[in-house]
This record gives sequence, C-alpha cells and structure tokens, in this order.
Amino acid sequence: MTATAARVSVRGMKGLMQERPLNIPSILRHAERLHPQKTVATKTADGVRVVTFAETVGRARRLIGALRRLGVGADDRVATFCWNHQAHLEAYLGVPCMGAILHTLNIRLFADDLVYIVEHAQDRLVIVDKSLWPAWEKVAARVGCVERVIVVDDAPGALPEGTLDYESLLAAAEPAELVEVPEDHAAAMCYTSGTTGHPKGVVYTHRSNVLHSMALCMADAFGIVERDVVMAIVPMFHANAWGLPYACLLVGTDIVMPGRFLVPDVLTSLLVERGVTFAAGVPTIWQAMLEPMKRSRDRLGRLRTVICGGSAVPPSLQKAFHREVGIRIVHAWGMTETSPMGSVCRPLAAHRDRPPDDLDALLASQGRPVPGVEVRIVGEDGSELPWDGRAVGEIEARGNWIASAYYRDRACDRFHDGWLRTGDVASIDPDGYIRICDRSKDLIKSGGEWISSVALECMLMAHPDVAEAAVIAVPHPRWCERPLACVVPRPEARERLTREALIEHLRPRVARWWLPDDVVFIDQIPKTSVGKFDKKALRERFRAHVLPDAAPPPG
Amino acid sequence: MTATAARVSVRGMKGLMQERPLNIPSILRHAERLHPQKTVATKTADGVRVVTFAETVGRARRLIGALRRLGVGADDRVATFCWNHQAHLEAYLGVPCMGAILHTLNIRLFADDLVYIVEHAQDRLVIVDKSLWPAWEKVAARVGCVERVIVVDDAPGALPEGTLDYESLLAAAEPAELVEVPEDHAAAMCYTSGTTGHPKGVVYTHRSNVLHSMALCMADAFGIVERDVVMAIVPMFHANAWGLPYACLLVGTDIVMPGRFLVPDVLTSLLVERGVTFAAGVPTIWQAMLEPMKRSRDRLGRLRTVICGGSAVPPSLQKAFHREVGIRIVHAWGMTETSPMGSVCRPLAAHRDRPPDDLDALLASQGRPVPGVEVRIVGEDGSELPWDGRAVGEIEARGNWIASAYYRDRACDRFHDGWLRTGDVASIDPDGYIRICDRSKDLIKSGGEWISSVALECMLMAHPDVAEAAVIAVPHPRWCERPLACVVPRPEARERLTREALIEHLRPRVARWWLPDDVVFIDQIPKTSVGKFDKKALRERFRAHVLPDAAPPPG
Repeated sequence: MTATAARVSVRGMKGLMQERPLNIPSILRHAERLHPQKTVATKTADGVRVVTFAETVGRARRLIGALRRLGVGADDRVATFCWNHQAHLEAYLGVPCMGAILHTLNIRLFADDLVYIVEHAQDRLVIVDKSLWPAWEKVAARVGCVERVIVVDDAPGALPEGTLDYESLLAAAEPAELVEVPEDHAAAMCYTSGTTGHPKGVVYTHRSNVLHSMALCMADAFGIVERDVVMAIVPMFHANAWGLPYACLLVGTDIVMPGRFLVPDVLTSLLVERGVTFAAGVPTIWQAMLEPMKRSRDRLGRLRTVICGGSAVPPSLQKAFHREVGIRIVHAWGMTETSPMGSVCRPLAAHRDRPPDDLDALLASQGRPVPGVEVRIVGEDGSELPWDGRAVGEIEARGNWIASAYYRDRACDRFHDGWLRTGDVASIDPDGYIRICDRSKDLIKSGGEWISSVALECMLMAHPDVAEAAVIAVPHPRWCERPLACVVPRPEARERLTREALIEHLRPRVARWWLPDDVVFIDQIPKTSVGKFDKKALRERFRAHVLPDAAPPPG
Repeated sequence: MTATAARVSVRGMKGLMQERPLNIPSILRHAERLHPQKTVATKTADGVRVVTFAETVGRARRLIGALRRLGVGADDRVATFCWNHQAHLEAYLGVPCMGAILHTLNIRLFADDLVYIVEHAQDRLVIVDKSLWPAWEKVAARVGCVERVIVVDDAPGALPEGTLDYESLLAAAEPAELVEVPEDHAAAMCYTSGTTGHPKGVVYTHRSNVLHSMALCMADAFGIVERDVVMAIVPMFHANAWGLPYACLLVGTDIVMPGRFLVPDVLTSLLVERGVTFAAGVPTIWQAMLEPMKRSRDRLGRLRTVICGGSAVPPSLQKAFHREVGIRIVHAWGMTETSPMGSVCRPLAAHRDRPPDDLDALLASQGRPVPGVEVRIVGEDGSELPWDGRAVGEIEARGNWIASAYYRDRACDRFHDGWLRTGDVASIDPDGYIRICDRSKDLIKSGGEWISSVALECMLMAHPDVAEAAVIAVPHPRWCERPLACVVPRPEARERLTREALIEHLRPRVARWWLPDDVVFIDQIPKTSVGKFDKKALRERFRAHVLPDAAPPPG
C-alpha cells in the first residue's frame, strides 16, 4: 500500500487534447460564423429596431477599435450605465474581447452608492444612455477616475457637453481583429448591494462566463434553442441579465430588448409582436404583467418558458399564471455571486403522475442545483445538514461560476474553504429541491426559534384581498423578535380588509407562535434597485412599532 | 497607439471565480447526490438487471479500492475489453476518478492490432468479459505489459485460470474517497484504426470529457434531459459511446445497456420494454433494426430521438425511418479524435416552413458545428475555402474536445497550427451545414476531378432493389481512377437486378463522368470493427478488376 500511495502522488500524465481558452471571443466567433442572420430587436420610441447578429458583432468589433483609439487597454474597467439594448450587447461583446473588463452599473442605485462603486472599481470610461443622463450627472461630478463618457442616443435632446457620441465613434473606427484572452482573465464585474457596509464587487472570468452559458443552455436548465426568441426583462446590470446575452449568442436565438420601455403593456406587446418564446424577469415584473398578459393570452401562443428569479415566486402568482395565462413559471435561484444560475426548478420524471397540487408545491421550490454547481446547507455550528426537507441552514455553494472573493475585499467572511456562504437559508429535500425560507438577515428569531418571513408572505399574498405583503421582525422584550406583517391591500379591498381577517387566514396554516403579532396596512412596499422587497427600509420604518399585546409563547 | 499596444500586452487581471477542476469526480459526485434513484438496466441472458445510480457509483468507489489494492496508481492504464454493461460503466467512473487512465479496447479488432495497441499503451491491467475470453486469450499470450486480468461474469463457464473475479474483488474492497484530479490530466484513451500504418491513440483529458458532456446536453445538440431513457447501442469502445455515459450521469437519465445481445429483435424489445426515449447507433444498426422497429412501431411511442453517426446516413434509410417508424433520424458527425461530437443536424427556425423535400435534403447533411467546436474546410493548397455549399475541401477542427496529438506519435501530420486534419472531405453551406463527400482516402480521382463515393452510394441505396452499396476507385490507365459499384441486392431482387438498371437509375442523377464504369454484385459488404464499410478490403479484393470499356472522358 505504501508503494501505491507513492504512485498516486506522482504528477499525473497530461491528456492530449487541444487547450483552447474558454473565452468570450470564442462566443463572438461562433455567433458571427454560425448565426449571422439571427437578430437583435430593440424597442425604441418610434417602434422596434431590428439588426442582425452579423451587424451587431461587426459593430462590437468597431467598438473595440474605438475604445483602443481612446486609450483603453487590457484590464481597464469600462462601465455601462444603460438599459437593455443593442449597444449594451455590443459592450458585452466588445469590452471583454479586447481584454478590458465590462462593469455593468446598476442605474437604480442612489448616487452615493454609485460614486463608491465607480471609484472602487476605478472605471476609466463609462457608456451612458442619454435617457439616464440626469442620474449619471449626479455621479459624474463626484468621481475622479472616469476619463471619458460615451453617450448612447436613446432619447431626444442634445449630446451632453464633454461627452462622446457612441454612433460617431463607431462610424469612425475600424473593426478590430480579436485577440485570444486567457480564460482566467477578468471579463466583467458587477457590484452587489451589501447587506451591511459597502457594495461588493464580483469579478467574472472569461471561463466562468463561457461555462455558465453552456450550463444555461443544457436542456434541463434554461434549455434555450436556436428557434427560441428570448426577451430578458431582467436588466443587463442585474447579474448579467442572468447570463442570457452570451447564451443567446452561443445558441443563436433571436434577442428582444425592451430598452427603457419597462411598462407592462409595452412589454406584453413585445412578447406578442416579436413572437417571444422565452422571457425572464423578477416576480414584481410578472406580477405587474399578469393582467396585460391575461388580456393577450390568445396571442401569446409562442411563449413556452417564463423564468422567474431574484426573489421567491409567490405560489399565488405561479397559480395565476398557470390558470390565466396558460404558462407555468420556471423558478430559478442564484445571485450576483453565482453568475447567477445556481438552481432551476424542473419536475423530475418521477413526478410525472403526481397530482396537480403536489406539482404546484414542487414548482414553488427553488429547484435543484444545475450540473456544475454544488450546494450544501450548513447549521449555525458550521456542520453540514441532511437533505431531508426539514433541516434548515445557510446554503453554501461552489463551482466554476461561483465567486471566490470580492474585488479588493479579500478578508470577507462570505468565503471559506472554497465555499461561498450565500446568506440564503433553506431546506433541501432528498431529491435535491431547495426551499429557501429566508435571507439569513430577514429570518425572524423568536424565543430561540426561526420564523420564515418568506413563508408568511407567500401565505398572505395568497389571500384574494392582498396585493403584496412583506413580513419583518420587530424587537420584542421577551421573545427577542416577533413578526410584523406589512400588507398592501388590492385597491377594491381597501375598505374591507382587516387585521383580524388576515390572522384568521393564517391561523389554520401555521404554528400558533408564527402568527404575526400585528398587521399594518401600507400603500406600497419599498423595492430595492433590482425589484426585491426592501426589508431594510421597512425595518427602519417600523423599528419603533408597538405590538398590540404580549405575544403567545413560542412552541 | 503605441502606448495602447503596450497596455494590451500586460498580463491580464485575473477574475475572482472559484477554480474548480472540470473532472470526472465532479460528474460522479453530481450523479450520486442528485440522481441516486436513477437506474442502469443491463440486458442479461435471463432478462434485465436494473440497479440504481447510487449502487453503481458505490460499486465504482469499491472498484477504486480494489484497483488500489492491486497496485494500480495514478497514470496507470486500465484497459477494458467489454460490451456495454453496468461493470463497464463502473470502470468509466472508477478508473479516471482514481487518477488512472481508462483504455477502452475495441473487441472487434484482429489480435495483431490489439497486441500492438495494448503494448503501445502499456496497459497494466485489463477488465475482460467472460464472453469475450476466447478473443482476449489470443492477445493475452502475446503481450508482456499486462500484469492482471479481471473477468466480468457475463456468460456461463468457469473463471479462466490466473484471472480475478470482478464481483469478488468488489465485494472485498472498501469504497474509496475521491481525490480531485487536475483537469488537464489524462482520463481515458481510445485507439483509432489508422488508414495507413499502426492504430493511433487519442488521450482525453478530464476537462475535455466534462466540456463534451455539457455540450452534448445543450438543447440543440443531443439535448438529453432527466426524463429521458437513453440506450447507447454504439459500443463504449467506439469513441466513448459518443460521450453518452458521462452525459447521462450528469443529467440523470435512466441508462439501458444491451450487453452482448446486439440482435435487432432483442434491441427492439429493449426499446419497447424499457421505454427508451433516446437511442444512438451507426447506420448499419439502424438499417438492421428498421424491420423489427416497423413491426413494433405502436409500442415505440416514448422514443423521441434516434442519433446516427459514424458513417453517412443514406437518405433512403432516413426516409424509411420517418415514413415507417415515425421518427426522423438525427445525423451527427465526429470521430475518435473529436470525443466525438463535432456537428449535429437540427433544422433552424428559418427552415420551419420549408417543403418536406427540402427538409429531407437538410437532414441528410452532417449538420452544423456545435458550440465549442470550430471547423473550416481547406483546399489542397492549404487555403481556407468559402462556406458556399459548393467548394469542397478537407474539414479541419479545433476546440476543447479535439485531439492535439496522438499518444507517443507527436510527429503525425494530422495536426498543424492548432487544427486537426479530420480526413473528411466536405462542403459547408452558408448556414454552416456540413455535407461530407467522402473520406479523403475514399475519394475517386478521375481525370483530375473528384467523384464522391458517398454520394453515389446514397443514390444506389435509394434504389428499391438494393440492400447495400459501396463505391470504390479502381486503377484506370487513362483517367487514373474510375468508380466501381459493389452492390448487395435485396434477397427478393437477387435474380432481377442488373448492372444496366442501376446505371440507368443513376444516369439522370449525376454528371455523366460520375457514372460507375462497372457494377459487381456481392453477398455482403465487409465492415470494419465499428460497423463502417471496409473499403480497404473491397479495394484489395477488386484491385485487378477489369473495367468493361474505356470510360467516357470526364467533364
């Protein structure tokens, strides 16, 4: 055995396969060679502008030429402050293919955060939509690193002073030859709003983006095919529009971009008129689109997949889509740190003959980890918990498109032993279906036991008179924390909906000690920049809320 | 510009993603964690043996333990001489996961070739099916490197003397912990019968196998999903059964293995009884299965995909399957050196409204390169030729699952400038569809012009009285070479089929100078060890064939 052990430690024999870098240039070459006639359609004020992949890729090559002339070189950060449109896609292609780093800025952040992020990343050049100039202007005055601003002409009005016109730069530039970028080179970065402290930068590699694109196209994941027409409503600054831009180029799907027209009626018209087969967005978008999509149901025959991620999909929304639009929403889970695809909810062959209610319960979960991503759940003491559908712990993830560190923040405790601590708290059932109970920061800790705010919210939103509901923890002298339900009634139910009705609605569905101590009615739930419930803001607002009675003892 | 150029050459900024090796252990872990209940069904003499992935993976871990006890270490070559069955799958998992190298031997080769291959690879240990012992015995006596032989009990009779029993070894072994194998480490090797000289060894890396598996599962490639039931009729020693074993483990499909029972009726029963949804094999298999599958058509309702590769699918076979079995064969192209998936034939969205004849013509092509594989066609002078559907040249390929060299044969001229010369001669149309005219060695060069033997064969096999046809070059004093058609008539047409009828059948379909100078009727076409027409043997047999008349001048 000693001899054997010695052999095992010998440096292995290398295989004899070609060593090609997994990089964005390979995606670009594939798109221009195999899918030159596929199209990118962007919504504009006048209608829809449709161009071929050949033209888009040709323009991306010109963008490289233009950026080189402006002195942009390898490793330079080129930021975008843009909606989803063709020029943004050109930046997705051109910037990484020249060895520079694409930095997608979240247009919905406050100026303070943007100033911090731009300075932290040391962006040298920014591509800004003219329609977003008022927001950018507030940032521009306060950052020192940005040398040039290029403006995309997506709205009326003159070019802001001191900026460069995107179209003129492209017209004057030569299309560039591609260079081979090493696969471990940084391709793109995206900051995630920290729960505490400053935003954190995730830096994707060429390799991670290519592997993520391949995994996305696997038939049991997003499974997109050439004959699809894909519309990412999720913004290109929100975790890379979930990886769809590169995946679409790799597979050759037609792409539909809503631009700045994120209005439910306009989006629904795009679905109909462009024959969209595959669309992706956060729950708040699909909630808002339910009514117009119901009205257009007859003309949505080509739509086959609706992906929903970013937050848990309320089962009531899932059911409404199935019943009234004729489509089952596919739930996906991930985050900026996971590129973002971590899990996708698809029924298994074993579920084929299950009753519809079982299937609904299954589809309400976050699904199973995709090949290439490993997950585990870990208790407060750091021990790994079983996949029994009951044990609840923090999800940890590892794999080739999972972050290993934040940019210039290596001491962060989110990373340990090669695993990412996701901050999501979940159970996993024996089949591998993940059920997220909460963000760890949103869990309500009452008398030493956890209460899932997400579970309470889903039940509240299933009530016919409730439009939206968020449940937060408020301090409690005896139980440490107790749940408070913040509820937005449907307009027509504003007069009749009562605290008591909601508590009675919950009573048969949860343990007694899970019942919220109080219900407050509000006009709307504050949202974060990526459309999630902003519970930090709610907790701030209701920090001093006085609960009506002593809560019943837990258990 | 000088400053810019200098920046570009600077070593790039690395991304901050986890660096996990792309290796077979990651596939094994995924299969045992996410798909423990999926099954491997192997046909035996008594029926079908069905075991779970959990058990299969557990046994693969025991195999590692057993091999370690026998002194097998990293880099050691462990050969298999086996049919497609569960133990072979366990070797596919166990051997690479211990850092050793799986070497799949082609059981249909002559002993001379096998002796050469085993000695060239320096196999230390061989796993042999008892049913194949008579064939192995002839090799065993002549090789010096093999220290141990393990026998899989797949047939009646005693264990051959001096060998070890596979089941006893597993029973006595402890399941091993997995080690992380570096991704560029050799995982497996497979020899390809050289057109000239000795067989050549292709050495796959862990990385190439993982990437190939992911690409195989992309929805526009093989697109297998968890709810599939996959039967690879293509042998596991034939280019890794086209990558299906690893892909099935990654996706969690049920696997059906025919063992040594490669009889059309038995295979058809397996398709029916196991509810196979996806099957893969060479054209000669599907030709042989056409009749039994026609008879069982009513019970093949779950079968959705039939993949055919290894040789060109005759359009007549394609049409017969569509008409009489209700399935369109999916054509794929590749070779041992390409892992093997190079291209897959799927219609594009643009073909949706094409007339059926157009679609048939399209499906007769070898399809389009899959993402991850780049191809080009190159003329005799080495220049790249256009994708216009007319220019014909040798296909060259590059990508992460394409060989960069043969084992211990680095001087081979098949590799140059990072490209593999495939030896296949083809045109590529503007949409990227590859149409293979011939193997370069099978092209007929008449008066300085090329004649495609494959094209003539497909036309001949479309004649209702023809069972099989191969066209070869015979020497000609004036035109250098001229085509000779070697035809196997259908049994019922043996008396009536004439040379003249076949020439008249071809006359309206090809240029005059393509018409074969003669037709010979033979009982069967010799096949290679992987079921392809053995034209080398035919050329040998008809080398001195006297053509009836002076051929007409080319052109």
